[in-house]
Amino acid sequence: MLDLPAQDLDRVFQALSNSGRRSMLERLCAGPASLGELAKPLDMSLSAVEQHVRTLERCGLVRTEKRGRVRYCRLEPTTMRAAEAWIADRRALWDRRLERLGELLDAADDD
Amino acid sequence: MLDLPAQDLDRVFQALSNSGRRSMLERLCAGPASLGELAKPLDMSLSAVEQHVRTLERCGLVRTEKRGRVRYCRLEPTTMRAAEAWIADRRALWDRRLERLGELLDAADDD
Repeated sequence: MLDLPAQDLDRVFQALSNSGRRSMLERLCAGPASLGELAKPLDMSLSAVEQHVRTLERCGLVRTEKRGRVRYCRLEPTTMRAAEAWIADRRALWDRRLERLGELLDAADDD
Repeated sequence: MLDLPAQDLDRVFQALSNSGRRSMLERLCAGPASLGELAKPLDMSLSAVEQHVRTLERCGLVRTEKRGRVRYCRLEPTTMRAAEAWIADRRALWDRRLERLGELLDAADDD
């Protein structure tokens, strides 16, 4: 599991905080796409898509590659997993706390 | 599982995009804390902590309650789960795609 430095994780969550960018990531889960293919269902200009893709690329959520005159994007799942892991690890802490509280309540019932 | 509207999810990821706020959430996983208790390990002014807590409260990651002169914060885990679920669901899409690709490659090997 990739463990990102705090500053990188800041950028990943920042990138995820825009529903248009999240839609692009969702599309890329189904496979690579050109900028035009990303733009079409979003009713977004090509230059707006380009800017969002740059944000996604800077934080490592997406890689792009130019073939001829077309730029293709693909998901970089390890970065997405790092964001998921941060939340999941915190949830695990929280769940353990609830478990301990439950045990304390059970013990109190037994008294 | 709580399914948040896109705009609310924008705010949750935005709130998570700051390492100071993530540290506060981490602390709150261990149980409720006052603003002062949140501020101490972070070397942050009380007014900076107050502002971060307001951001966390606005998006539903944290609830606060005033008891006497002290404001206590506690985690609202359902909101954190909604952010985790968004990523996990996308990862599931991605994993299914990789599985299908694997099957296609296996079938091609059999030919």
